[in-house]
Amino acid sequence: MTTVKTDLLIIGAGPVGLFTVFEAGLLKMRCHLMDVLPHVGGQLIEIYPKKPIYDIPGCPMILAIDLVNNLRKQIEPFKPTFTLGERADRIEQNSDGTFTITGHKGTRIEAKVIVIAGGLGCFEPRKPPIPEIERFEGKGVDYFVKQPEDYKGQRIVIAGGGDSALDWTIELADIAQSVTLIHRRTSFRGAPDSVDKVLKLVGDKKVNLITNAEVVELEGKIKLEATIVEHNAEKMRLEADCFLPLFGLTPKLGPIADWGLAVDKTAIHVNPLDYSTTVKGIYAVGDINTYPGKLKLILCGFHETTLMCQSAFHHIYPNQKLSFKYTTVTGIEGFEEKSVKDLQLG
Amino acid sequence: MTTVKTDLLIIGAGPVGLFTVFEAGLLKMRCHLMDVLPHVGGQLIEIYPKKPIYDIPGCPMILAIDLVNNLRKQIEPFKPTFTLGERADRIEQNSDGTFTITGHKGTRIEAKVIVIAGGLGCFEPRKPPIPEIERFEGKGVDYFVKQPEDYKGQRIVIAGGGDSALDWTIELADIAQSVTLIHRRTSFRGAPDSVDKVLKLVGDKKVNLITNAEVVELEGKIKLEATIVEHNAEKMRLEADCFLPLFGLTPKLGPIADWGLAVDKTAIHVNPLDYSTTVKGIYAVGDINTYPGKLKLILCGFHETTLMCQSAFHHIYPNQKLSFKYTTVTGIEGFEEKSVKDLQLG
Repeated sequence: MTTVKTDLLIIGAGPVGLFTVFEAGLLKMRCHLMDVLPHVGGQLIEIYPKKPIYDIPGCPMILAIDLVNNLRKQIEPFKPTFTLGERADRIEQNSDGTFTITGHKGTRIEAKVIVIAGGLGCFEPRKPPIPEIERFEGKGVDYFVKQPEDYKGQRIVIAGGGDSALDWTIELADIAQSVTLIHRRTSFRGAPDSVDKVLKLVGDKKVNLITNAEVVELEGKIKLEATIVEHNAEKMRLEADCFLPLFGLTPKLGPIADWGLAVDKTAIHVNPLDYSTTVKGIYAVGDINTYPGKLKLILCGFHETTLMCQSAFHHIYPNQKLSFKYTTVTGIEGFEEKSVKDLQLG
Repeated sequence: MTTVKTDLLIIGAGPVGLFTVFEAGLLKMRCHLMDVLPHVGGQLIEIYPKKPIYDIPGCPMILAIDLVNNLRKQIEPFKPTFTLGERADRIEQNSDGTFTITGHKGTRIEAKVIVIAGGLGCFEPRKPPIPEIERFEGKGVDYFVKQPEDYKGQRIVIAGGGDSALDWTIELADIAQSVTLIHRRTSFRGAPDSVDKVLKLVGDKKVNLITNAEVVELEGKIKLEATIVEHNAEKMRLEADCFLPLFGLTPKLGPIADWGLAVDKTAIHVNPLDYSTTVKGIYAVGDINTYPGKLKLILCGFHETTLMCQSAFHHIYPNQKLSFKYTTVTGIEGFEEKSVKDLQLG
């Protein structure tokens, strides 16, 4: 196997990993991206490609898949290279301070800086403890909504009280025959604005809401036919074509948890000024990191990785000054074959 | 004069000020914006409406004016109110902890939180010490490029070594009859990528570059006719229709400098975790603030103001918990007439 050599190895090719290529490229640092998924875009493509996103600054509404495509276009001039469908497994630090990462299929990548942009890592849905739920998976029980149109005309039961449950209740109310939202408590953890919207749909009789309730059983011969809901110690039968338990994801750091970084069970601790980890030369940006006040928003990851690139530049070129603070550039040309050797910074 | 009452008073209606309305709106906080300019959009509209911006994540290229229009659309659901064409002059803290701001035309605004998003404040161009330069202002000497097309077919001399000089050299090379870039040194302060691009244009004979040189005199009866350039202690005459001295802006904080905040001559010092100033209830976001590692980028301002809103929420509602961490929402509806009174957060 050949060894790939790069300035920055970015682990995770989600939106924040992709945008890292742009900011690194402006500083003339080359990037290689590695992702366990067989495609770029991370969760946005894997879990919700058709979901509209409203909180990307400057984009009143953009589908997840379009955001990924725009980011791909934005980084194209910097000619990033990729190892997709392979998990970063082992890390070694070489005597010259560089790192060698080995993937689970044996690919070796040598990098001056490692950027962990792993999002929720190897995430998996949090499954409710309902007997036989596995039997109905793909036969009426889904943990993710990939194509909202697939639910057209169906009777849907959604369980959960967070943003995902609220968002899909709103989105599917227009598409499905009926939507019933079941929540164990009476207050919601989601965005106040989304809570309002759901309550308005309930008022307009477009959504059924049952609080202080839980789905406790599933019925159906081959496919799902009904959910049994427990409410005030009584059970009721609710006919349903589809049950969506949306209790979020359980993040797992995977092998990265053993790399000697300061981590808790779900996130890597970083310095909030440059997003460096406790190992010099390794950074963590986006949903996988944590610091006081951390918000898991894509727009925050974009900022984190921008500041991180400055620190990575100084790590790679400790003796070079870098003056770089602008909001517009005219023409992004990326790397020329003939680079300007005597370019001075400072 | 009536007094406007609001949750957040945002001083400065540039891109970061505008996006603040969105993030505050998601937390159901109302915003009023005040700007000394008669329009929203700040520098993007005042200085470079037609300039393409390449570093907004998810937008491979967007004109400044389009970014502002998108942000206006994005915040529309939250019904912000505005006081435009008026400078925030005086600040008083009321006994209940709220603030009263008085504008220079006498408008009074009462707010629970003040967000200073003043960008470069009352900025002005840094003028080179060339005799009689004022006589040619608007008659061949411009400090800003508002409409690149206005320079079609002209012989242009640009002076400067930063991003603005580099960017406009690249942009105008296609439009003007000729572009000559004059720089006092041999190394540039701008983005390495832009330096490369200018050097390529020089190699292709599309731009003339004179380093170690300075424009020392201007000639012309009514309009500019020529610039006198000093290079290696010799003077040469360069015919020109237009001279653009692009040495950046001199930021001035204006009256805000007297509000008791920790400031230096150009920026307000903030806590990098929530962008709070040294006065509780007053925050500063975007180009007007500073903290270790600060980058003056629009995308950083977007992140700053998002984290700031969380802190502002806790300042206004000290006893409410807020769980709010999502990257997509479905449907931004803003403020309903009938708000949900018993909405619980937490």
